[in-house]
Amino acid sequence: MKIGVIGLGLMGASFGKVARKNGATVYGYDIDEETLQKAKLVGAIDETAETCEKDLDLLVIATYEEQFYPSAERFLPLLKHGGTIIDFCGNKRTIARDMKKLAAKYTDINFIGGHPMAGREVAGIDNSLIALFDGASMVITPIKADIFAIDELKKYFLSLGFKEVVITTPENHDKNIAFTSQLCHIVSNAYIKSPTAENHFGYSAGSYKDLTRVARLSPKMWTELMISNADNLKTELDLLIANLEKYSEALGAGDKAALCALLAEGNDRKISIDKGKLE
Amino acid sequence: MKIGVIGLGLMGASFGKVARKNGATVYGYDIDEETLQKAKLVGAIDETAETCEKDLDLLVIATYEEQFYPSAERFLPLLKHGGTIIDFCGNKRTIARDMKKLAAKYTDINFIGGHPMAGREVAGIDNSLIALFDGASMVITPIKADIFAIDELKKYFLSLGFKEVVITTPENHDKNIAFTSQLCHIVSNAYIKSPTAENHFGYSAGSYKDLTRVARLSPKMWTELMISNADNLKTELDLLIANLEKYSEALGAGDKAALCALLAEGNDRKISIDKGKLE
Repeated sequence: MKIGVIGLGLMGASFGKVARKNGATVYGYDIDEETLQKAKLVGAIDETAETCEKDLDLLVIATYEEQFYPSAERFLPLLKHGGTIIDFCGNKRTIARDMKKLAAKYTDINFIGGHPMAGREVAGIDNSLIALFDGASMVITPIKADIFAIDELKKYFLSLGFKEVVITTPENHDKNIAFTSQLCHIVSNAYIKSPTAENHFGYSAGSYKDLTRVARLSPKMWTELMISNADNLKTELDLLIANLEKYSEALGAGDKAALCALLAEGNDRKISIDKGKLE
Repeated sequence: MKIGVIGLGLMGASFGKVARKNGATVYGYDIDEETLQKAKLVGAIDETAETCEKDLDLLVIATYEEQFYPSAERFLPLLKHGGTIIDFCGNKRTIARDMKKLAAKYTDINFIGGHPMAGREVAGIDNSLIALFDGASMVITPIKADIFAIDELKKYFLSLGFKEVVITTPENHDKNIAFTSQLCHIVSNAYIKSPTAENHFGYSAGSYKDLTRVARLSPKMWTELMISNADNLKTELDLLIANLEKYSEALGAGDKAALCALLAEGNDRKISIDKGKLE
């Protein structure tokens, strides 16, 4: 197995580490020369992509979304006939559009969008972990790929330690990710802005810690992700605001029955959703 | 050390367990007869409070807020001269008012409000844990107590496994707790109400899990807590809503610079607040 990994940040470098441990030879590239050298040093890659002999089985683009197209265009020629390209970007509709354009030119290549459900509050190769994907879900959105290539890729991800591979459409991915990830980051980031946060020491059990964990984030990266998925994200955010306003009204009116009904509704919903997870 | 514990739910029973392990004799009471019997069975108490010989060193009222006054009135006569009463209720201003009334009558008793910063998403004696308070903060709000009694109580809590005892006013406690606990529960409870929550399986890394953990709660208990602290809680909630609306506006306008500035502000604030914690 020969794999190219383009973009050696948290995701790319972590993937390189685990793929190498699993037996693959990994060729890497990063626009930052220092990162590229460090990747060899920390065992995230074997060699730089320039030294690769144009027979990669798999090409992983782990750059920012806006760098996907130029990176893919530059390194696609390194894939063997019947090889597969996947990306690790956080939204899948924009990548799908790029992949469709590229697929018209590279007709013998499988194009599959990807998003590993793993991350950290800290970024970059220095924070990469060989176990980052252990037990994580991998979402893939096939754009133009034969069923055997999809099956092979699925088995490969499972062999690396992912617990499941979810196959879906770019549209469905983007709708779900707005809720399960992007909205969390906005809420957490806004939560910490209360002046009371400065005086909270000694007053926090687990809930404050959990609510504010992802307040820390890479503003540039998350801005790109959020703006690219702004339609879905704004829908979720506005719905949350509307729901929060109901609690505020009940508090303002001192209306115990209304507040209790709101809390009970959320409690019941949490229980039924967690049950659904187990079925 | 002889301790009375009134109300043998999650908090009271957990406290009874750890106090007994630490060497105290614990006398308990609960309005529910089955809970009271169970408390003896699981080792949360030694005997029922009725059997106590009116020489308690410490009386802990771990009931709902509305039950504090009648419970205190009923069991205060069991305290020895110079003994201390403390409660474990989630707000401290209402308790302070009750304690002031009682202190006029019981002039030889120390009155101290208390709130252990520990909890679980599940309630009741069946979920009580001997280690519930390990490493937790204990907030106390002395109402009428001599300095030696406060110092003794502080040392006692530390000997049980609490990591720190914070001494403050009821007003300051209620302002902080609205932010670090009550608001978390509203946000989490509202978050889970999006229809997208039903389809999230396979799309969640840690952030969704953290944001929705405390969506599950006891509606009755939290309604009491929140209504009793409605002024502080509504202030925090409305501020959060106002902050969230800024992100929504930036998303609606597709304004990258504005969104990035909002995210950077939250990120910087989280980092500086976490640093403050270490100092």
